[in-house]
Amino acid sequence: MNEKITLSHGAGGQHMDAFIKEMILDEFAQNMAAEVPLHMLDDSAVINDIVFSTDSHTIQPLIFPGGDLGSLAVAGTINDVSVMGATPIALSSAFIIEEGFSVKTCKHIIHSMGQTAKQAQTPIITGDTKVVEKGAIQEMMINTSGIGQRSTVLDENIKEVQRYRSFPQRWLLDSNLKPGDKLIVSGNLGEHGIALLSFREGYGFETQVQSDVAPLNSLIHNVLQVGGIVSAKDPTRGGLANTVNELSEKSHVGVLLNEETLPISQGVKAACDLLGLDPLSIGNEGKVILGVVSEKANEILEKIKKHPLGKNAAIIGEAQKDIKGVVLETTIGGKRILQKPIGDPVPRIC
Amino acid sequence: MNEKITLSHGAGGQHMDAFIKEMILDEFAQNMAAEVPLHMLDDSAVINDIVFSTDSHTIQPLIFPGGDLGSLAVAGTINDVSVMGATPIALSSAFIIEEGFSVKTCKHIIHSMGQTAKQAQTPIITGDTKVVEKGAIQEMMINTSGIGQRSTVLDENIKEVQRYRSFPQRWLLDSNLKPGDKLIVSGNLGEHGIALLSFREGYGFETQVQSDVAPLNSLIHNVLQVGGIVSAKDPTRGGLANTVNELSEKSHVGVLLNEETLPISQGVKAACDLLGLDPLSIGNEGKVILGVVSEKANEILEKIKKHPLGKNAAIIGEAQKDIKGVVLETTIGGKRILQKPIGDPVPRIC
Repeated sequence: MNEKITLSHGAGGQHMDAFIKEMILDEFAQNMAAEVPLHMLDDSAVINDIVFSTDSHTIQPLIFPGGDLGSLAVAGTINDVSVMGATPIALSSAFIIEEGFSVKTCKHIIHSMGQTAKQAQTPIITGDTKVVEKGAIQEMMINTSGIGQRSTVLDENIKEVQRYRSFPQRWLLDSNLKPGDKLIVSGNLGEHGIALLSFREGYGFETQVQSDVAPLNSLIHNVLQVGGIVSAKDPTRGGLANTVNELSEKSHVGVLLNEETLPISQGVKAACDLLGLDPLSIGNEGKVILGVVSEKANEILEKIKKHPLGKNAAIIGEAQKDIKGVVLETTIGGKRILQKPIGDPVPRIC
Repeated sequence: MNEKITLSHGAGGQHMDAFIKEMILDEFAQNMAAEVPLHMLDDSAVINDIVFSTDSHTIQPLIFPGGDLGSLAVAGTINDVSVMGATPIALSSAFIIEEGFSVKTCKHIIHSMGQTAKQAQTPIITGDTKVVEKGAIQEMMINTSGIGQRSTVLDENIKEVQRYRSFPQRWLLDSNLKPGDKLIVSGNLGEHGIALLSFREGYGFETQVQSDVAPLNSLIHNVLQVGGIVSAKDPTRGGLANTVNELSEKSHVGVLLNEETLPISQGVKAACDLLGLDPLSIGNEGKVILGVVSEKANEILEKIKKHPLGKNAAIIGEAQKDIKGVVLETTIGGKRILQKPIGDPVPRIC
């Protein structure tokens, strides 16, 4: 018995779920002080009204169409804090750099981090730098952690939800969906993973498809102003399929998705057809899935569409009492179960 | 011009200072909202009364005499939060793991993290797991970030300082030393670095010298109860030499250290003599240097000595107006300038 870690342990799908549950949660069980503790496996934890999240970014290549390791590291963590309904207030940044790495590329990435943080009005206030000998790491990896706090806009959003249904929660948790809630996606799916894969492997689709990497705090702030949002989650590793399944499992509610409404660009469609990939399992880095009370869905959609990052937003489905898991109503009129991907069709994308 | 990153860029000495100042601080300049911003380069930053710190741990080997990557990752970040005078309230944990890494060793490290967090009563509440292909990283690296908050014990400590001198600060900053303040170290120097180096290289000193890795929040809490502490800093990379120079530079005050009073075990002395290393430049992972008002120094020393981690504590020097930098009064009666190490005599120790 000499078991080994495999790539799928970190791929954001079923294997990773099992790995985390078996190897980590019990060991880190003293979580009771947290309002949203580790074992809820939400995008961030919450303790003493501080929202807290972390992400280590191990992407290859470091610079890709539409972004780079730096913009990804900043946007990724801002998004994990923002989808709780919190306002990100600060980031940390920890570099691990390989000896011999190009100072010029390093500068490029650090500049990009600074610019993305500035765009998102979220300062990087603390950091760490480690350099390891050649071969001990591949070029550069960045961890960003983030903290966020409540804002009045979150409180107002919750009051608005409470006009339509009972809602005792204080944050936009994965477990908050109820039958009847609508699901909205903020834009085209699969662009980050396809841009990265295509660029890395030289498939050529990167001329049509760029990564969507972007900080979503301003978009989420805007939709919270409308009110009526119960859940929010960014579909990163494992894509929409993984994210909607998480919402469904944690909320104990089925979800019916309408394939026809899913916004997917021609470039991503063409790439996925050619490569035999499911765009619904491909990671995104600048998209959010919102669960909203049905009465507010249209108003929220209109508001998102006014944001530069939300132009292709769409209502894509509904939580339903009478179905199990996530069911996709296909364009040809059939229905299929949409499962969590088992591994990751495109590794090293975040 | 195709400049490359070198190991000394991450070694915690003069090269790293320059690297951070030149490449990072300007890019991350939008820090003004922070009470203790990035450019103060203290052990943690502070924003909205939240203390925030991060560390990526790249140690080799992963398990060493006295500890392992897991205990180190937890203790290191708890210490960075604690030396601000804050009470650590939560940690994050982000794993990067190499494909093919032993599940057994992985479990050992995660168990050790959990145990150290429990011992320090600081829960790990959020996390991330990435697995990268074989060769993209060496075994496993862990980032821990930490948040802390003010406690009444910090407020009381500050009131006690104010009985003796003007003290407008709210945290135990590196820049808080004034002439006349005494420096106290909580125990023997150099043990972490020597234990690790000896074990890694097979020098054999590890039978006498174990790593001192330990969370210091309970010790720091105890001494804050005495009151009169103005500064605290853990002498990790670059050891005492680096830490005291940081305090001296940031406080614009000279420091006179008395070599005779420096607590160093026979094992570390013997190893350093043989290997030609200066124990004052060797990293520690369970020690703190305190700057205290002179009137309280003896009382604080007595309190530290009662803590299991403070048995070998000693008053080691004094901040003085009339000297520049850090001066060591040697056991043979001479004086020498103690500089920041340029690189790191023992790489990959944290």
